[in-house]
Amino acid sequence: MDILIVGAGSMARGIGTRLLAGGHPVHIADRDPQKAKGLAAELDGDATGHDIAEGPEDSDVVVLAVPYPANVEIARNWAAQLAGKLVVDISNPVDFATFDDLTTPEGTSAAEQVAQAAPGAKVVKAFNTTFAGNLVNGTPMDVLIAGDDDLSREAVAKLAVDGGLRPVSVGGLKHARQLEGFQLLHMKVQDQIGGGWASTVGFGG
Amino acid sequence: MDILIVGAGSMARGIGTRLLAGGHPVHIADRDPQKAKGLAAELDGDATGHDIAEGPEDSDVVVLAVPYPANVEIARNWAAQLAGKLVVDISNPVDFATFDDLTTPEGTSAAEQVAQAAPGAKVVKAFNTTFAGNLVNGTPMDVLIAGDDDLSREAVAKLAVDGGLRPVSVGGLKHARQLEGFQLLHMKVQDQIGGGWASTVGFGG
Repeated sequence: MDILIVGAGSMARGIGTRLLAGGHPVHIADRDPQKAKGLAAELDGDATGHDIAEGPEDSDVVVLAVPYPANVEIARNWAAQLAGKLVVDISNPVDFATFDDLTTPEGTSAAEQVAQAAPGAKVVKAFNTTFAGNLVNGTPMDVLIAGDDDLSREAVAKLAVDGGLRPVSVGGLKHARQLEGFQLLHMKVQDQIGGGWASTVGFGG
Repeated sequence: MDILIVGAGSMARGIGTRLLAGGHPVHIADRDPQKAKGLAAELDGDATGHDIAEGPEDSDVVVLAVPYPANVEIARNWAAQLAGKLVVDISNPVDFATFDDLTTPEGTSAAEQVAQAAPGAKVVKAFNTTFAGNLVNGTPMDVLIAGDDDLSREAVAKLAVDGGLRPVSVGGLKHARQLEGFQLLHMKVQDQIGGGWASTVGFGG
């Protein structure tokens, strides 16, 4: 699988680290190609940096590691090129001023909006409940996965397993609503639980 | 605090067990008073069984341990008597035939419907993500709490702490939507994670 991560921020670093740990080469694309190349150089393994203007090219998997709604915009702009590709949306459409609301309209989710914007893509929601620092450190945790295409969910699950994480498939893409909703709460309670943005969401016991 | 649990099923047993472990006497009311008395007799501590027809009487806290939408019906029928009382809604409005959908209308939650049905009550959502068996066993876990009244959230948090659990306040009652939504997923993935209805939801790390 040829994997492209769009964005060169902390989540790109986290997911890139886990993909590389699992033996998967990664391409990283950013509006600032130097930033993408810089992150690629810092990662341990076969990583290359690119200009986002190059588009998704031959990548089979495109991870949109940019905030909402930029992820939706990229999906719209790349809609034709994303047809048939697996697109992973990791975004959290949270009102970061208050941490009390989602910024998506009622009855949908960021991931579903990505799917609407690129109707030919196989969109999977994943990695939105995993903080970047934990991904970098390799903290074992659940990766909750929603998507309408079974093989695409399974492909993301394999990437998670390869990277030392536990995938949990929660079903169709509509369940991105619940994944985005719960991560709002996880972010909101950071101070209360002493999370320090290093806590995890998951199923124990 | 005088606490009444409405319902005498497995969740009434679980919550009753934790309340009694925390030193809080409980009343249990059911349509079948013999069932309520039977559960009270089985619990370890100061527990009494009642006929639901007695109403909430002098209880300060009323835990609605009945399924949705029976909880809403009880709240409506008891609306006048519940004014000023702390009402804890623990329900999961899940389509139990498919485990793939909530049965609440979009843009609301079971807990918010309880609050609408009993406008004078101080409604708190809690204990919907804690399985009954874990409550009976005293498994340490998070109790996620949503409610518009700060003191009511704090009162429920204290009951959780007294029972050996970790309360996490997630804010206003509207966040019951996210709590109910995530528990849908938790129930749905039981087979996949080998949960055996003994798994937990929470924040780790």
